[in-house]
Amino acid sequence: MRLAEARVAIEGVNLEIDGGRFAAKVVAGREVAVQADIFCDGHDSIDAAVLHRPRGAEDWTEVRMEFLVNDRWQARVTFAENAFHELTFIAWRDLYTTWRKEVAKKLAAGQKIDLELEEGRRLLQSVETAGPEDRALVDRILAEDGADQEAGARFARMSSPEAVAAMKRCAPRTNLTCYRILPVFADREAAAFSAWYEMMPRSQSDDPERHGTFDDVIRKLPYVRDLGFDVLYFTPIHPIGRVNRKGRNNSLTPAPDDPGSPYAIGSEEGGHDAIHPELGDFESFGRLVEAAHAHGLEIALDFAIQCAPDHPWIREHPEWFDWRPDGTIKFAENPPKKYEDIVNVHFYRGALPELWYALRDVVLFWVEKGVKIFRVDNPHTKPFPFWEWMIGEVQSQHPDVIFLAEAFTRPKVMKRLAKVGYGQSYSYFTWRNTKAELIDYLTELTTEDCRHYMRPNFFANTPDINPVYLQHSGRPGFRVRLALAATLGGNYGLYNGYEICEATPVPGKEEYFNSEKYQLRAWDFDQPGHIQDDIRLMNHIRRTHPAMRDFTRLRFYDAHNDSVLAYGKSTEDKQDFLLFHVNLDPHAARTFEFEVPLWEFGLPDDASVEVEDLLNGNRFTWHGKWQWLELDPQTRPYAVWRLYAPGMPR
Amino acid sequence: MRLAEARVAIEGVNLEIDGGRFAAKVVAGREVAVQADIFCDGHDSIDAAVLHRPRGAEDWTEVRMEFLVNDRWQARVTFAENAFHELTFIAWRDLYTTWRKEVAKKLAAGQKIDLELEEGRRLLQSVETAGPEDRALVDRILAEDGADQEAGARFARMSSPEAVAAMKRCAPRTNLTCYRILPVFADREAAAFSAWYEMMPRSQSDDPERHGTFDDVIRKLPYVRDLGFDVLYFTPIHPIGRVNRKGRNNSLTPAPDDPGSPYAIGSEEGGHDAIHPELGDFESFGRLVEAAHAHGLEIALDFAIQCAPDHPWIREHPEWFDWRPDGTIKFAENPPKKYEDIVNVHFYRGALPELWYALRDVVLFWVEKGVKIFRVDNPHTKPFPFWEWMIGEVQSQHPDVIFLAEAFTRPKVMKRLAKVGYGQSYSYFTWRNTKAELIDYLTELTTEDCRHYMRPNFFANTPDINPVYLQHSGRPGFRVRLALAATLGGNYGLYNGYEICEATPVPGKEEYFNSEKYQLRAWDFDQPGHIQDDIRLMNHIRRTHPAMRDFTRLRFYDAHNDSVLAYGKSTEDKQDFLLFHVNLDPHAARTFEFEVPLWEFGLPDDASVEVEDLLNGNRFTWHGKWQWLELDPQTRPYAVWRLYAPGMPR
Repeated sequence: MRLAEARVAIEGVNLEIDGGRFAAKVVAGREVAVQADIFCDGHDSIDAAVLHRPRGAEDWTEVRMEFLVNDRWQARVTFAENAFHELTFIAWRDLYTTWRKEVAKKLAAGQKIDLELEEGRRLLQSVETAGPEDRALVDRILAEDGADQEAGARFARMSSPEAVAAMKRCAPRTNLTCYRILPVFADREAAAFSAWYEMMPRSQSDDPERHGTFDDVIRKLPYVRDLGFDVLYFTPIHPIGRVNRKGRNNSLTPAPDDPGSPYAIGSEEGGHDAIHPELGDFESFGRLVEAAHAHGLEIALDFAIQCAPDHPWIREHPEWFDWRPDGTIKFAENPPKKYEDIVNVHFYRGALPELWYALRDVVLFWVEKGVKIFRVDNPHTKPFPFWEWMIGEVQSQHPDVIFLAEAFTRPKVMKRLAKVGYGQSYSYFTWRNTKAELIDYLTELTTEDCRHYMRPNFFANTPDINPVYLQHSGRPGFRVRLALAATLGGNYGLYNGYEICEATPVPGKEEYFNSEKYQLRAWDFDQPGHIQDDIRLMNHIRRTHPAMRDFTRLRFYDAHNDSVLAYGKSTEDKQDFLLFHVNLDPHAARTFEFEVPLWEFGLPDDASVEVEDLLNGNRFTWHGKWQWLELDPQTRPYAVWRLYAPGMPR
Repeated sequence: MRLAEARVAIEGVNLEIDGGRFAAKVVAGREVAVQADIFCDGHDSIDAAVLHRPRGAEDWTEVRMEFLVNDRWQARVTFAENAFHELTFIAWRDLYTTWRKEVAKKLAAGQKIDLELEEGRRLLQSVETAGPEDRALVDRILAEDGADQEAGARFARMSSPEAVAAMKRCAPRTNLTCYRILPVFADREAAAFSAWYEMMPRSQSDDPERHGTFDDVIRKLPYVRDLGFDVLYFTPIHPIGRVNRKGRNNSLTPAPDDPGSPYAIGSEEGGHDAIHPELGDFESFGRLVEAAHAHGLEIALDFAIQCAPDHPWIREHPEWFDWRPDGTIKFAENPPKKYEDIVNVHFYRGALPELWYALRDVVLFWVEKGVKIFRVDNPHTKPFPFWEWMIGEVQSQHPDVIFLAEAFTRPKVMKRLAKVGYGQSYSYFTWRNTKAELIDYLTELTTEDCRHYMRPNFFANTPDINPVYLQHSGRPGFRVRLALAATLGGNYGLYNGYEICEATPVPGKEEYFNSEKYQLRAWDFDQPGHIQDDIRLMNHIRRTHPAMRDFTRLRFYDAHNDSVLAYGKSTEDKQDFLLFHVNLDPHAARTFEFEVPLWEFGLPDDASVEVEDLLNGNRFTWHGKWQWLELDPQTRPYAVWRLYAPGMPR
């Protein structure tokens, strides 16, 4: 008869991922709406609360829920601590409210309620534990009540707002029902809201003939910070293999001084826990990390598990690799493509568990060096259970560590990686260019279940992806894709060169010509045509507008042009309300009618709102719901408006 | 490191209800598509199977799955036995298929594959257990293979269809991953597909002055059977209370000979396990059950838990009831409405567990008397845990027992009752009249998750519901709602009087005037204007067309008229394909263009199909996708077509 204990039905929990198999993700300190369907048999009133606590804590924090509609209940909950948490629900029958509502109806219908008043007295008498104020109030009501008094007055006393509130707090919880415990992980905010800038440290000497060093990078920090970024992300900084090293443009015939791909990790100089000697050493790396923090920047490292053929692990741990019948190790390939400069570990057979421990320890090693963000290369080609275990291990000790999954793969695989613990995920944004594509994809990301566990990072380009759109769009397209990435994404990223609209491809491919992956480069980011102003503006808007912090608070609006995307972001209270228009066509001006979302402020279609143009600071008034705008890719490919409803502080 | 064992991701199971908390429902002996998202890290090939067994059995039945699209896998599974079952999934990496595909690509790219062929040999050698034929085949391939042979020929031998099929069967299952066990209940088909006819036995004497008996009902069986129904359902047949008995039209002033509501159960003559003496006794009830079975009809009884004030339980078990401060029991009410002739039991405090046992035993008592279907009155006002426990107890002994939930209440409550075990559910069909309402509601029922646990029973009317639509529609509307109920619903029902278009309301209410609930009635179902022919036709189509048996196999089609609903039902192989047109407007003829769903047969828009008019047997040909039709409510309010694609047997 254990079943009998669960009289109140609790189901449809919004933060329950795969039946509680995986943790939902929230942001520590940021209020989240926790919802569930809660109902009981019959027509009696019920009440419900969310319980939550950091994992391992004894006491629960209780947050009373409120009824929304159609048996849906909600509580606004803040998980304060950056940690794993537990979440559950309790619900119970609220006999006093049931009594009060029934008696009110009978009184209104002119029915006799003497017996009901006596029943009300008994409910008040049933209070066993209460704070002193509630206790005093309940006792006073009972003392003042008398069977000789007028029924309506007696009921009014028993059903006063104070009495009802006290009974909500202290009445027995009849048929108390508990839900099962669900896992929640509260990340620090950078997991959900961050602007990334990607560079290769070796290309920071400003001299294509000289290998850059960590000290060169330190000199670039003011530039990156001035652009407004939060995270500075480096491709791998480890020793690079010499065996089968790749030459410029991925050739198999490297020149003697070609540096090789930093993704071919490991040589006799060390592996994943070593620093490529030409970059510097742990001392200069430590200085770099400190200098970055002093500039308000975090360093993110690349975690790429593959090994160059001369990685020390191959000699030390042959059981971690796939050996072929001829005694060689299979190099990485995606037939017929070959990656001769790397071999992959395997994760099972002889590699389990020692390799798992070793990889976890590599991450912990860099955490000790001050790195708290890891962009993980190709995680979809390594086992999900490894990630779930490894990320769990690391975050149990260091909940502030964030992992970004660089997985451009099938949708369910990408989502699974997010479920097993990745705090950020590469996304399809990079290839979503049309209005319909962007609306469909963003609607999925911001409204479907995945919003509770997957946080996309909208990279506009990467060293591996020189998007076709940008190859043909010229400077206007770079401004467009920047604006989209920065304002649609909670997290977004640019790979250096973006600010000067670099887009020279390997012909016919989405790859960069003379890619930094295979050679040193020197960059001049101040050359004519750079878009540093746009980047600075976008990052400024992101930093100064709370509406930007939760990327799921996105709404699309009507703009009568197939190339114009219109959308808004706002805080819950609408005090910070931004409206965006982006002309997706980098080649032609578009003039269009658009709707001003007056209804979001509860205003009629003929109302007026004050508007601030965040690009130039102008302020004016829109009268009425429909307005006209032109966006010319050469001058203004996008617009950002702040709307002030009547009565709002300016 | 337990996690490591689950290398293959298995999720998104279509038959998983609330994370496995509740059983999915299937029909014993009817094939069902079991689906899950299954994928692994990397690009290796995988394979998967469904495992299932009756609960308590030791051995699993394995059904190999096939890949559909986007990481979705499916198996067609038949749960043969009417019983509780267990369902799970296994998946593994298929190294031989991975090997075969990689080598084929290398061969096509002209690469050397000697090493790969040796790896293939090792995979063949890894077979440990195999049937004699597979063993012989694998041994022969290895024996015939030689390093001196031409590589392409060697690969062809190793990758022959026979070799691949054998390896699918007997190769080791690498990284075998098991899902958790999910519950499934396989009902007999009547739970999902049945036509109900409801009557009050006491009104079957054909004389309003004489109380009907079970023998009177026996005389009606040929009529009910001739109409084509499967289930004959009676309102309660128990002794009726005398205290606070209701008079005609729900009055509080009954005449001495008024029979009272059969829902006021219990008097000094007995309670839920007794028979109202004027109806007969257990002997005549037994004869009735047998005679019904002989006619191919099943008897369904009403299970209404409330008690008349003179029910024996009140004296015998005062602890099962709510006593008020004045020593009375609260009668049922929904303030300000009062139901003076009944009191409700409560299910907790003193009533737990003895009342639960007693109620279960009432059901088992009637099961012993040959009743296997129970329509349960107002289940939503009794605790969900009671139903879950009680239905589980009954079906563990008698899996062929079916419970229909008479719960006209909020959507999530209705769904929860289905989840906790009800095999059929009353639905909102009774109030869904317009084209948009019907499409929305049927789309929800047939495509959303609830299709795996909730089976609506589309009652067109009930003793409690005289729908407004029928009050104003006249005979054409009765034909329309019959056609909709019978062809949209897997289960549907009519309450007697429907066949003569009875719709006299209590003014302003959805109730019948002179309702049988409070008085005896005599019916003449052969009076002019009856629609017995329509009922007979609908039930004939249901019985003879396999397309009708799974109500979720519904598709809506275009018909260019807001009052015309067009839809189809078909078997998976399209051999039985029915197209329906219903004019929802009972007052005006509608002429409209409609689409012939040629694409369902893979035919182009200008193709022809042969058509049979199932109302009159005419056969002809439709040429092209768009056709015209007129439906006149007075003559033909609906049409039913059988479509034959070219090459199908006629």
